[in-house]
Amino acid sequence: MKIIFLGTSASKPTSERNPPSVALQYNNGEFMLFDCGEGTQRQMIKKVSPMKISKIFITHLHADHIMGLVGLIQSMKLNGRTQLLEIFVPKDTIEYMKQLFSIPYFSADFEIHVIEAFDQKIEFDGYWIRPFPVSHGVPAIGYVFGVNDSRGKFNKKLCDELGIKGEMFSSLEKNGKIEVNGREISIDEVTGKLRKGKKIVYTGDTEKIETFPEEAYHCDILIHDSTFISQEDKKETYHSTVKEACEVAQLLSAKKLVLTHISQRYETKEVEEESKKYCENAIVAEDFLEINL
Amino acid sequence: MKIIFLGTSASKPTSERNPPSVALQYNNGEFMLFDCGEGTQRQMIKKVSPMKISKIFITHLHADHIMGLVGLIQSMKLNGRTQLLEIFVPKDTIEYMKQLFSIPYFSADFEIHVIEAFDQKIEFDGYWIRPFPVSHGVPAIGYVFGVNDSRGKFNKKLCDELGIKGEMFSSLEKNGKIEVNGREISIDEVTGKLRKGKKIVYTGDTEKIETFPEEAYHCDILIHDSTFISQEDKKETYHSTVKEACEVAQLLSAKKLVLTHISQRYETKEVEEESKKYCENAIVAEDFLEINL
Repeated sequence: MKIIFLGTSASKPTSERNPPSVALQYNNGEFMLFDCGEGTQRQMIKKVSPMKISKIFITHLHADHIMGLVGLIQSMKLNGRTQLLEIFVPKDTIEYMKQLFSIPYFSADFEIHVIEAFDQKIEFDGYWIRPFPVSHGVPAIGYVFGVNDSRGKFNKKLCDELGIKGEMFSSLEKNGKIEVNGREISIDEVTGKLRKGKKIVYTGDTEKIETFPEEAYHCDILIHDSTFISQEDKKETYHSTVKEACEVAQLLSAKKLVLTHISQRYETKEVEEESKKYCENAIVAEDFLEINL
Repeated sequence: MKIIFLGTSASKPTSERNPPSVALQYNNGEFMLFDCGEGTQRQMIKKVSPMKISKIFITHLHADHIMGLVGLIQSMKLNGRTQLLEIFVPKDTIEYMKQLFSIPYFSADFEIHVIEAFDQKIEFDGYWIRPFPVSHGVPAIGYVFGVNDSRGKFNKKLCDELGIKGEMFSSLEKNGKIEVNGREISIDEVTGKLRKGKKIVYTGDTEKIETFPEEAYHCDILIHDSTFISQEDKKETYHSTVKEACEVAQLLSAKKLVLTHISQRYETKEVEEESKKYCENAIVAEDFLEINL
């Protein structure tokens, strides 16, 4: 899997940072987007195929998180897309999304399902999403993206020796065992080491919260709002400081923290230095940062 | 005056070209935008101050020409703008614009006037606009931007010698003459060469049209839709080929032709080569091209 940061600014673009969007490429080549700020489709060029985006997870409906949707969808249409696009939004915002999509001349030749994401796990083919409420002064959610543990790869040489071939693999997969030449073989015998699942938490914009779903704990990567360095700059906004993001990383025992949604008032270096005070495993996202996991 | 091309692509952005927008800086520092595609506010960084934009002239309401408006206005608000913003749109589209501005959480702390531009000249302080109908399958207009001839600069040395000073200048300006030390002096005697007016024509998206308002003729710069090279690529779209744009330049006796809204299927060089067949004074716009006039 690969995470690509397409936009890492707060509120406004800067010359270095586009408004928020994070792309996730799943093992099968499928892409998902988390938020879709203005200019996202241009950031995607040569990195993310619009035609391979199956789902877009929106954290909240402030303009800097959604204004890339219309252009992206219009470009998908121009490219002749026929595949369904699913867009997940916070509870009580579906009417707002409909309003956005009722602007003049907006149309798509493919189906778009806008789905309100509640505070519960949604299973997909091979992965799951766990939306959870955050605190941003408007309906807003974060997402845990998860892939469960899965069996290791088939040992092809061994399977060959044992006479396992063709449709026997799917039968073995389905039943966990198979009889070949009078001998019962379990799937564990012919597959390698268990492949450990992965979990990514993306908070979107939020002030520091302390209640997370169980699924968020021990995540591999926590991508956290880190708009401000000081409380003075933060004031009463519903955003987090670097320190608060680091505290959340500790609370969740996150293996890695990626700070994003960086206010234009700071240099990346300042944010990095601040994070080093509180967290060893933190990095500051920059546009086009890629993380493989 | 200065023209800055902020976006020169057709429909979709490319790695080289952003969706359409052209900025015009008037002599007094005031900026105007013609169209405002997605990502325009980012293209403006270090080139156009959002706070100095007084007017935005929209040619039509297809997404690639307007999707930068919301983000730009939200950033103006964040920057504390108080100045009025005027947005001109084609006849019969004001309701559509209202729909765009009624999307969730959109707000501005300053006044925005959305004004339908009819087929007649609008005078402003020092310059004028002449909207005119084009042919794009939806309500669409082009604009002639004009600055009238104006008197030359005061010859300060001569004024000094003749004793013209202080408030006498505004009196001279107002009455065209003044009496100093018993002698009547006309403004022509103490000012330099007449400063020739300028005219810029921006068509927006259009198929070739042959009816233009009188004001469009003999323009200094014609900025014309030039989406396609061949009629085969163009098909039945309401756009122009390079050849057609060149023919319009000849029709209008334009001093310079700037081809823009370039389809992603072409290299800039191809478009340039095609234009050279028909027009000596044509150039192909690229993002951030600046023209002083």
